[in-house]
Amino acid sequence: MPNQPSDFTLNILGCGSAVPTSFHNPSCQVVERRGSLMMIDCGEGAQVMMRRMKLKFNRLRHIFISHLHGDHVFGLPGLLSTLALNDTGGKLTVHIFERGADVLSRLIRVFCHELPYTLEWNILEPHGGQTLVESGGMRVTTFPLYHREPCVGFRFDEAPKPRHLLRDMLDFYNVPVARRQALREGADFVTPEGLVIPNSRLTTAPDHSASYAYCSDTMADDRVADSVAGVDLLYHESTYGDELSRDAIARGHSTARGAATVAARAGAGTLLLGHYSKRYRDVDSLVAEAQEVFPRVIASTEGQVIDIATGTVLTVLR
Amino acid sequence: MPNQPSDFTLNILGCGSAVPTSFHNPSCQVVERRGSLMMIDCGEGAQVMMRRMKLKFNRLRHIFISHLHGDHVFGLPGLLSTLALNDTGGKLTVHIFERGADVLSRLIRVFCHELPYTLEWNILEPHGGQTLVESGGMRVTTFPLYHREPCVGFRFDEAPKPRHLLRDMLDFYNVPVARRQALREGADFVTPEGLVIPNSRLTTAPDHSASYAYCSDTMADDRVADSVAGVDLLYHESTYGDELSRDAIARGHSTARGAATVAARAGAGTLLLGHYSKRYRDVDSLVAEAQEVFPRVIASTEGQVIDIATGTVLTVLR
Repeated sequence: MPNQPSDFTLNILGCGSAVPTSFHNPSCQVVERRGSLMMIDCGEGAQVMMRRMKLKFNRLRHIFISHLHGDHVFGLPGLLSTLALNDTGGKLTVHIFERGADVLSRLIRVFCHELPYTLEWNILEPHGGQTLVESGGMRVTTFPLYHREPCVGFRFDEAPKPRHLLRDMLDFYNVPVARRQALREGADFVTPEGLVIPNSRLTTAPDHSASYAYCSDTMADDRVADSVAGVDLLYHESTYGDELSRDAIARGHSTARGAATVAARAGAGTLLLGHYSKRYRDVDSLVAEAQEVFPRVIASTEGQVIDIATGTVLTVLR
Repeated sequence: MPNQPSDFTLNILGCGSAVPTSFHNPSCQVVERRGSLMMIDCGEGAQVMMRRMKLKFNRLRHIFISHLHGDHVFGLPGLLSTLALNDTGGKLTVHIFERGADVLSRLIRVFCHELPYTLEWNILEPHGGQTLVESGGMRVTTFPLYHREPCVGFRFDEAPKPRHLLRDMLDFYNVPVARRQALREGADFVTPEGLVIPNSRLTTAPDHSASYAYCSDTMADDRVADSVAGVDLLYHESTYGDELSRDAIARGHSTARGAATVAARAGAGTLLLGHYSKRYRDVDSLVAEAQEVFPRVIASTEGQVIDIATGTVLTVLR
């Protein structure tokens, strides 16, 4: 049974590559789950796109920065300053490599004399394998990517959800209220007479626990596919088309076809393309090349809101 | 006689204040003179606006940063990185207070491994009185502003231009070609017989040497008016309207009326308003309040190109 569409969504704030253009912002996404926001990469212009997409600044709790290239980072000074002016309070954690934390925290000290919120810098390891968040039914972990310089991907997994109780069966077996939580978690029920009623008789399967993985920037690599195995929605950079596959390798990037190969090997539900080279004003050819390898492909666009469980585009800001 | 309209122009890339909104970018302007570009302040989004306004990156020679508030600075990392990717070559000088140069040069070292151009950091003094540029018939100087923290304004003055030769009079007096440059610079002509022909008989007045001054952020202050005396075009911040004049003083800003008072005392040609608080989506009331004190008022808007000598809006990007 799918989630409520608005329960766990991905917002696209920027999907261009190194150079912002008049038609794409540099990389930035926001994962929204039950009203709490987590940002992935923070290219220049991120704060304006948050405002345009009506994503509330005071709900932002984590920012994950995949690597230290400007097109993934340079929206951060402005965003952190605006949060300071907005009197948001609460705590915000920026997850970033050490050299980035060092130089950006210096910058913030010079430009923001007072921070009304707690700003924490959590240092990322380039080899992945970290659990960055584990709370509220959500786990965020890192895995290595294969770029010109250290880069990690982020994987968002909803925790297993409770099974659904079958009210009429509970009544039939006289299950006391105090036992119901155990049944939601999969336990069998034992009657006062010692009869074991299997959980499957009393409950139905839980809602699907959805998952999302973010891979930018990276070459297409089987190891990436293994790290993102089984996700419902996979964002994988597709900087180039087939005609520039040599450039992709030389620059540590992927073609759209390469991204689709990773999605196919990973058994992903839907593949989301992005990080387009500025030469692709129209990305239809990238989608077509990816679809020769993997059927469910979406081209990310600024302003999209995508349901993670189903890989459905819910809305697009115009 | 006015300049050619396109000879010395001001481009408005951003005219909002502390927080970028969906309708204004933070502060950024570009002075264009004979194809060479000088940027004043560099709020987030400056590089995208340069591209939208078709201002060529490789013509940018100077960036002047008035003070260390993020809305005047945070476009700089992205712009300097994009210049690095564009293989522009040449030399670019960033004029900025020392703490800004320190932290931004560190940032650039982390994010830009190679710079194909020479990047120079020139340290501004908070009390003004520096000559930053003096070449190509243009002088750029600083003067103090009065804000919550150190802030300087920038004044752009065209050097005196050559007088126009009256060909028929030169022929009449048989002025040799070798003497003509001296006449353009105002010298009299002495005939072989020792007769002194006054310059005014041989030439007409030179083209007007235009001037522009940039004042942001500052309280309205007579000392500012004295620093910008006689400029053709005066940009003076107008963060608030009359109803918030107390906030203006408390926060080291100016009302539109205050800006007009400065323009009137300075004897400026045209007043350009900007740095609007985000509460003013429509700035007609600010223009009206300013015009009660000073007649020639323009409200700056992103995408405007303004002729500095005449204070005329030449084009507006839509």
